[in-house]
Amino acid sequence: MGRSADYSKQRCAIAASLEIVGEPWTLLIIRDAFDGVCRFEQWQEALGLARNVLAARLKHLVAHGIFEQRLYCERPRRYEYVLTQKGRELRPMIVFMSDWGARHVYGEEKPVTEFIHEACGHSLSPVAHCAHCEQRVQMTDLFSQQNPDAKSIGELNRARLVAEEIE
Amino acid sequence: MGRSADYSKQRCAIAASLEIVGEPWTLLIIRDAFDGVCRFEQWQEALGLARNVLAARLKHLVAHGIFEQRLYCERPRRYEYVLTQKGRELRPMIVFMSDWGARHVYGEEKPVTEFIHEACGHSLSPVAHCAHCEQRVQMTDLFSQQNPDAKSIGELNRARLVAEEIE
Repeated sequence: MGRSADYSKQRCAIAASLEIVGEPWTLLIIRDAFDGVCRFEQWQEALGLARNVLAARLKHLVAHGIFEQRLYCERPRRYEYVLTQKGRELRPMIVFMSDWGARHVYGEEKPVTEFIHEACGHSLSPVAHCAHCEQRVQMTDLFSQQNPDAKSIGELNRARLVAEEIE
Repeated sequence: MGRSADYSKQRCAIAASLEIVGEPWTLLIIRDAFDGVCRFEQWQEALGLARNVLAARLKHLVAHGIFEQRLYCERPRRYEYVLTQKGRELRPMIVFMSDWGARHVYGEEKPVTEFIHEACGHSLSPVAHCAHCEQRVQMTDLFSQQNPDAKSIGELNRARLVAEEIE
């Protein structure tokens, strides 16, 4: 993974996400999957990415349970990559990332894709609500609560590998 | 920026965001800023990052209007880094990223930080709503609308540089 960051000492859910989807190109691979892309050659053409980099990213995303491989051709053996539930649940984060880029980088210009909310037919401006009280969350109305016993990402990964060996 | 991705040919608001906040460590620098960190030495201690990497990241984030520099010491000249409005508006995306990592990587384990929604006192489970109709957005209820005239990120950057020269 070259000059990537080593987040293993972090005790943080943001770093935990970045360890899985923080590599260059990874979120664009997942973006394209939401638009129906599922084969190596399609991503290669869409992103213009070196084949070894794309292969490494897909392998990493399969290992972390974001994609499942599905055989679509026996001879030669070829696999499609299908988003799992865990992968599909990245979409809200990606939608908020897209909204920020549209407002703060594109600004007056329109980016190539906007999300339409089919239920009301409008271009989506996403806002965060609290699932408990259902109110809109003001970002100044959050505070961070610390859990001193939290595991580091390295400790979590070691526990996961041990659990996989026992299986 | 070393072996980072070149997203300049992308015509996409997600890639536009990643070009600014997609570098390794960048989102953790911003995470710490939301927790009150604002000085070089504080980040250096918290993240254990090489000084040249941290300096490059802060410079990049100032250039892209995420942080403003504020002089806090005349001799020697020392600057604090304060989130701008553009920077603060990254928080919803970061909150959703944290939520995904907590649920899908930490799972039963608690990460070190959780967000408490002060208005109701509960640990925040964020959900996306549509600002227009105010309904909760089902992620299967979005479709992508294409704008064939969209500028690439490289074109946007060139336009920005020209505008800055004219100013």
